Amino acid sequence: MRIRKKPWAEKYIQDHGDYIVTDPKKWLGKWQQRFAKQQPLNVEVGIGKGRFIIETAKLHPEINYIGIELQTSVIATALRTFMDNPLPNVQFVLTDGANLDELFYKNEVQKIFLNFSDPWPKKRHAKRRLTSPLFLKTYQTVLADDGNIEFKTDNRGLFEYTLVTMNNFPMTFEYVSLDLHQSPENESNVETEYEQKFSPKGPIYKLIAHFITEQPGD
Amino acid sequence: MRIRKKPWAEKYIQDHGDYIVTDPKKWLGKWQQRFAKQQPLNVEVGIGKGRFIIETAKLHPEINYIGIELQTSVIATALRTFMDNPLPNVQFVLTDGANLDELFYKNEVQKIFLNFSDPWPKKRHAKRRLTSPLFLKTYQTVLADDGNIEFKTDNRGLFEYTLVTMNNFPMTFEYVSLDLHQSPENESNVETEYEQKFSPKGPIYKLIAHFITEQPGD
Ligand SMILES: C[S@@+](CC[C@H](N)C(=O)[O-])C[C@H]1O[C@@H](n2cnc3c(N)ncnc32)[C@H](O)[C@@H]1O
Ligand SMILES: C[S@@+](CC[C@H](N)C(=O)[O-])C[C@H]1O[C@@H](n2cnc3c(N)ncnc32)[C@H](O)[C@@H]1O
Repeated sequence: MRIRKKPWAEKYIQDHGDYIVTDPKKWLGKWQQRFAKQQPLNVEVGIGKGRFIIETAKLHPEINYIGIELQTSVIATALRTFMDNPLPNVQFVLTDGANLDELFYKNEVQKIFLNFSDPWPKKRHAKRRLTSPLFLKTYQTVLADDGNIEFKTDNRGLFEYTLVTMNNFPMTFEYVSLDLHQSPENESNVETEYEQKFSPKGPIYKLIAHFITEQPGD
Repeated sequence: MRIRKKPWAEKYIQDHGDYIVTDPKKWLGKWQQRFAKQQPLNVEVGIGKGRFIIETAKLHPEINYIGIELQTSVIATALRTFMDNPLPNVQFVLTDGANLDELFYKNEVQKIFLNFSDPWPKKRHAKRRLTSPLFLKTYQTVLADDGNIEFKTDNRGLFEYTLVTMNNFPMTFEYVSLDLHQSPENESNVETEYEQKFSPKGPIYKLIAHFITEQPGD
C-alpha cells in the first residue's frame, strides 16, 4: 500500500501520545503500564487502517491489543478512527514489525495476527514476507508456549508459501480454511478494510498455527 | 462413484490375469516378478477409470506402477482402456487400499498417488478418508525413507482436512498448490478423468508431502 504523505499525520500522532508509541524499544518490558488492566497481550502486525484491531478489541475487553504499522499516514488514519471511540485495551505502535523480539520479552505475547500482509510475489523478495522463516523465528521467541498465529490473506501465492514455510519450520496447524467466507467459522470473522474491499474477487484463506514447544528433556 | 454392475467386468478381469491381481496378499514381496523390469514402485490408490496411471506410466517407463481400485466394474473399465495399448510397467489390483501395509513390505514403495479420493464429508466418516491418520500410518510403513505422497483434489473440505492432518501427523510439505491449473507446475500435470470433468467448476488443489524419517539416535 503506497499512500500519499498526509501532512496532518505526524502532528496527529504527537498529539495522541497516550494511545500511540513511536519509540517502542523504550517500552520493552513495560507495555502493560500503557493499558488500563494487566491482561493477555495480542499483537497485530500491519494493521492498515485499523478496522480489524479496533473491532476485535471491542469484542474482547479482557485482552490487550497492540497494533503495529510501518507507515505514518496509515497508522495515523487508524488512530483517527480509533479516537472517535477510544478503548482502554488498544495501543498503536509506529514501527517495522520485523524485529518483534526487540519489542517484547520472550513468551510475552499470546497471539499474533497477520492480515493481508504484503505478498512480495518476487522470489528474491521472499525474505520480506511477514511469514518468512526469519520473521517466524522472532514470533516464536515472543509468543507464549500456548500462543499462536492467525493469518488471513486473499493472495494465493502468499498462502501457498505460508503453508509450506510454517509446516517446514516446523509449526502445527490448528485450522485451515481455503474459503473463509464460505466456512462456518466466518460467523465470528472480523473483516479488515482490505478484506471488505477485495474478497468479492476470490476466496479468503485463513491459517491458525502454533510453534512446537520443546518438551523438557529434548 | 457408484456405477451400475457390469456383467462383463468379472469375466474380463479373469481373462486378463497377466495385468490384474485379485488376491494381492499372495503377491506380498513378489510384486517385481509381475513386471518386465525390476525398478522403483509407485502406487495409486483409487485409480477410477485409469487415465492418470496409464498416461503417467507412458511418460515414465523407468518406474513400475501399481493401480489399486475397490470397485470391480471401475477397475475393469480401466483395464479395458489399458488393453488397447498394454504397458510392461503397469499392474492393476482389485482390492481395498485401506491396508497397504499388508500388500507391501516396509519401504517398498517410492511414491503414493491419491487423486480425487472420495471426500466423505461427514465428520463421523472422517476415518474413511484416504488421508486420515490411520491410512497415513500404513503409507508411512510402506514408503521408502525418501518416498512421498502426491495428493490432488477439487474438494475444499477434504483438502483443508488433509493439510491439517498431514501437518499434524507430522509430515513435511514439499509443494502446495491451491489452483494447480493456474500454477507453472501444471505444464507437467497429468489429468485424471475426474479432473477433466470437474475442474471447470473450481480450483484443483495439490499437495506433495513426505514423512519425517527418524534420525539414528532418536
Ligand atoms: C495490504 S495492507 C493490509 C492492511 C490491513 N491488515 C488490512 O487487512 O486491511 C498491509 C499493511 O502492512 C503494513 N506493513 C507491511 N510490512 C510491515 C512491517 N514489516 N511492519 C509493520 N507493518 C507492515 C503496510 O504498511 C500495510 O499497511
Ligand atoms: C472420485 S473417484 C476418482 C477416481 C480417479 N482417481 C479420478 O481422479 O478420476 C474415487 C475412486 O476411488 C475408489 N476408492 C475409494 N476408496 C477406495 C479404497 N479404500 N481403496 C481403493 N479404491 C478406493 C473409488 O471406487 C473410486 O473409483
